Amino acid sequence: MTKSELKKRIDVAAGRVPADVVIKNAKVIDVYSGTVIEGDIAISDGYIAGVGTYEGEIVHDAKGRFAAPGFIDSHIHIESSYLTPEELGKILVPHGATTIIADPHEIANIKGLEALDYMMNAASETALDIKFMLSPCVPATTFEHAGACITSEDISVELKKKRVLGIAEFMNFPGVFLAMDSTLDSLLAAHDAGVHIDGHCPGLSGLNLNAYVSAGISTDHECTTVENMQEKISRGMYILMRRGSACQDLDVLLGGVTPENISRCLLCSDDLQPRTVFETGHLDNHLRICVKHGIKPVEAIRMATLNAAACFGLSDRGAIAPGLRADIVLLDDLTEFRVAQVYIEGELIAENGKYLPNVIRCDSSAMESSFHVKDFSKQKLKLNLKSDFVKVIDIRPGGIVTGKGTAHVKVGDDGDFKRDEAVDIVKLAVVERHQNTGNVAVAFLRGYGIKSGAVALSIAHDSHNIITAGVSDEEIAFAVETLVAQGGGVVLVKDGKVLESMPLPIGGIMSNQSGEWVDEKLDSLHKIAHKELGVSENVEPLMTLCFMALPVIPELKLTDMGLFDVTVFDFTAIEA
Amino acid sequence: MTKSELKKRIDVAAGRVPADVVIKNAKVIDVYSGTVIEGDIAISDGYIAGVGTYEGEIVHDAKGRFAAPGFIDSHIHIESSYLTPEELGKILVPHGATTIIADPHEIANIKGLEALDYMMNAASETALDIKFMLSPCVPATTFEHAGACITSEDISVELKKKRVLGIAEFMNFPGVFLAMDSTLDSLLAAHDAGVHIDGHCPGLSGLNLNAYVSAGISTDHECTTVENMQEKISRGMYILMRRGSACQDLDVLLGGVTPENISRCLLCSDDLQPRTVFETGHLDNHLRICVKHGIKPVEAIRMATLNAAACFGLSDRGAIAPGLRADIVLLDDLTEFRVAQVYIEGELIAENGKYLPNVIRCDSSAMESSFHVKDFSKQKLKLNLKSDFVKVIDIRPGGIVTGKGTAHVKVGDDGDFKRDEAVDIVKLAVVERHQNTGNVAVAFLRGYGIKSGAVALSIAHDSHNIITAGVSDEEIAFAVETLVAQGGGVVLVKDGKVLESMPLPIGGIMSNQSGEWVDEKLDSLHKIAHKELGVSENVEPLMTLCFMALPVIPELKLTDMGLFDVTVFDFTAIEA
Repeated sequence: MTKSELKKRIDVAAGRVPADVVIKNAKVIDVYSGTVIEGDIAISDGYIAGVGTYEGEIVHDAKGRFAAPGFIDSHIHIESSYLTPEELGKILVPHGATTIIADPHEIANIKGLEALDYMMNAASETALDIKFMLSPCVPATTFEHAGACITSEDISVELKKKRVLGIAEFMNFPGVFLAMDSTLDSLLAAHDAGVHIDGHCPGLSGLNLNAYVSAGISTDHECTTVENMQEKISRGMYILMRRGSACQDLDVLLGGVTPENISRCLLCSDDLQPRTVFETGHLDNHLRICVKHGIKPVEAIRMATLNAAACFGLSDRGAIAPGLRADIVLLDDLTEFRVAQVYIEGELIAENGKYLPNVIRCDSSAMESSFHVKDFSKQKLKLNLKSDFVKVIDIRPGGIVTGKGTAHVKVGDDGDFKRDEAVDIVKLAVVERHQNTGNVAVAFLRGYGIKSGAVALSIAHDSHNIITAGVSDEEIAFAVETLVAQGGGVVLVKDGKVLESMPLPIGGIMSNQSGEWVDEKLDSLHKIAHKELGVSENVEPLMTLCFMALPVIPELKLTDMGLFDVTVFDFTAIEA
Repeated sequence: MTKSELKKRIDVAAGRVPADVVIKNAKVIDVYSGTVIEGDIAISDGYIAGVGTYEGEIVHDAKGRFAAPGFIDSHIHIESSYLTPEELGKILVPHGATTIIADPHEIANIKGLEALDYMMNAASETALDIKFMLSPCVPATTFEHAGACITSEDISVELKKKRVLGIAEFMNFPGVFLAMDSTLDSLLAAHDAGVHIDGHCPGLSGLNLNAYVSAGISTDHECTTVENMQEKISRGMYILMRRGSACQDLDVLLGGVTPENISRCLLCSDDLQPRTVFETGHLDNHLRICVKHGIKPVEAIRMATLNAAACFGLSDRGAIAPGLRADIVLLDDLTEFRVAQVYIEGELIAENGKYLPNVIRCDSSAMESSFHVKDFSKQKLKLNLKSDFVKVIDIRPGGIVTGKGTAHVKVGDDGDFKRDEAVDIVKLAVVERHQNTGNVAVAFLRGYGIKSGAVALSIAHDSHNIITAGVSDEEIAFAVETLVAQGGGVVLVKDGKVLESMPLPIGGIMSNQSGEWVDEKLDSLHKIAHKELGVSENVEPLMTLCFMALPVIPELKLTDMGLFDVTVFDFTAIEA
């Protein structure tokens, strides 16, 4: 801020000078007091000068609408939308988001800190203010191969640049509570820089939770029960109540919000696909749900604004008050939270669901050519089972936690699995794609429902190797080969033919197309997966597979190095 | 923190290694949730590792007592206690204070940044954690002479050292809302450093309040009404609810605390004398009052702990949770808040009202010899009134705001005031003592009640010139001369004799004696002032005078340069 800007802001606030922009006749949401104030909002150089009676050069008439602070999504992975930051901004802002706290760990797993450069450049092309966190767990664990590695030295160097808000979700939570050496170095780098550290600790409780929090980790977005949420709040954590495309914990967690603990509760989406935004919205939908669950409207808005600002130390936003960024959402009502207009830094950015600025997409060429798959062949999918009693990964629809199941399967003379069409168990495979290791790991998946063909994706949290499931080694191998040839994305195959595909050239995980294009493509992929391949209707055919390789979410997962038991945090034999 | 400290803390938290210290069998106050948890508190290297079931090398049995986070006084001037930081720590910690946010602007007005060095050195000799703010208004205004001047350049340089938390109360609030050039420079220095700025804006409201807050000022401790408090909260300010020796707004303001705005409310004492601490306590008394006014005990404690930590960005304290400083108060109950033990960084510092460590006092010689009074004589007290209808400063007992009154007084042939024994109006004088200016200013004071002799002090906020009131020029002049000769402090004189005195060698405002000594001395001074000099019983004889020279508190004040009307922020004639 320059001296003349400060002087002007004060002069505008005091009414001595007209504002640049005034939003008149608003019912201003006061998140500090839980009340609503009628008045005008005066804006000077993109910042709020005052709330009261004001005149200005540009006048917007709120016509008695509610004016809320811009919504802050406290935790999101942009890459999960398959969209670039520019395109995601275009679809989120019309729903009231003005700030998102982004963890770019998907693309960081592919391209390391070079990906952070790309994401930040791309973010500068959207009006949405994207604050980045630095992913500390790249790769998520030492039990898989990713395209990049971010070391504690990298973290230390990067934090000195002060371009990130802090450390993103510390997913290797056993590494923290077991005080493993490599995690200590990363934690110390964060401590030395004095930055915020986000957590990720599904189900963690008791002394291990104490240990995790004692390391300075201050949030969790993985709560699924009220009990766990309340224990974590008691230990000092902020709870980022999640509702995204795959994980929807918000409804349950609202049962644990009290007047005393609400200031420790925030809203986030974590992973969000365009369809979810188009059909149900973003944080506007979270707010609808909060109010339906009995949270007072202004308190709900506080969770989406001031609480998030407090948690992340964003002292320049989170409320409509003098001196803060003029990030303002005009709402028709406080039950449906219909967003009429969105202002960012005082500028009208979205109106009636439409993002107004032209989207100029940033150059993403440095993020392309991410496939390095050596010597893949159908032979690598073969199993040599020592027993017909095996471990199976049990899908639990609607979440990303899997069950550690067992089953008796048919085994051929060659020791390989023989699929029984009457039993919903198929091969799941992970094919390493970054480092030419030639790694291929195979496990059993139950509950996916696939009845013909195969599905393959290069989106597989967090290392984003190729993950694939299918009814035969032939179908799986064809799917993998097709996927590699198209440079990543998604393919659905059946009987040696490609039924549908979605190329994702940016790191193999993000599209260079619009939200609408991605949504239509996904819709087609979903329909074909269910109708032509027979994937169960209660299972999201793509995202379900995306999380099968994530060895920090219980219970049983598959990395390119083998079957992984998250409950003991080690590899395990496929035989039960 | 070193790597081995981090590892040990995590290991202790996880229960793998015994704690250094365990406080067993506590009812742990959970300020995050508004609840109480039974358990042990494990401590590692002065930090809390966990709350649960723990063993340790040193075991303290809480015997079922409540364990609260250490109390944080969010705004205090150490100098107002007349004690050094070491001695103040000794009397505050037994009442549960473990952190105070100190604004050293009294001594800074005398010795500038050299005083900050002294105060910080002295603070290192007490277990109480004293966080200093940098006083931006030294002198408070340009309408008086102080012993030092802290410029915006000084502020900029000092903030780069990162040894202060932020900018202390920005008392020149008209300078801010009028966007005066010199205040803009100081504000910008704070903005550039990204630090917190405390406010001070009694009665400020409407557009001028917007203007003040728009400059980035985030607290106020000068609210005296619920309406003003709630307006300031709506504008984004934290409200530091004050109860000190002179100003007691807490009781009134508690009427404005709601479940929605309580997280914006903090507790402070501002100015505190030893007697108040000995008789009623410190924040333990604030908590008693809060609970008597219907605030839930844990919420009251939250105002004294977590809210203050959040307001000042002290992310290492404010709750009993893993990773935070082990600043813990054991309380017998949650109505009287009797403090049984106080731990600071895991060490037992006070027990049953007694501060346990030996107090080693830091060298204060650099703060002595602060008197530079040129050419003072009785003649300078003479008035040359143009009218017998004059302005009088009306004392309002129990506060520091004065009334702007008028009166008809008797005037002699020489134009000077002739005191009427039947009328409670006397001369008040301010004698400049820092820069040998020879300035002496005289005004009328009503409501003090003095019937004989004179009182003189070298404590006169904020410039700390000599302030004196008495029944005749002779008595006043003798009091001033006596005070200069003793190097500052307080003197009471009558009929040319010194009835009582308290030397304050440190800057003329602080004692080098203990709290008990100061308290006894003050008691004697108060008794003699009331009994021998006739000062009204409803008026605090010394502190009342201390605030008569503070030109940032409405309505009428007296500086060494003349009578000052705070409501128009300019000098005014003595004639009405």
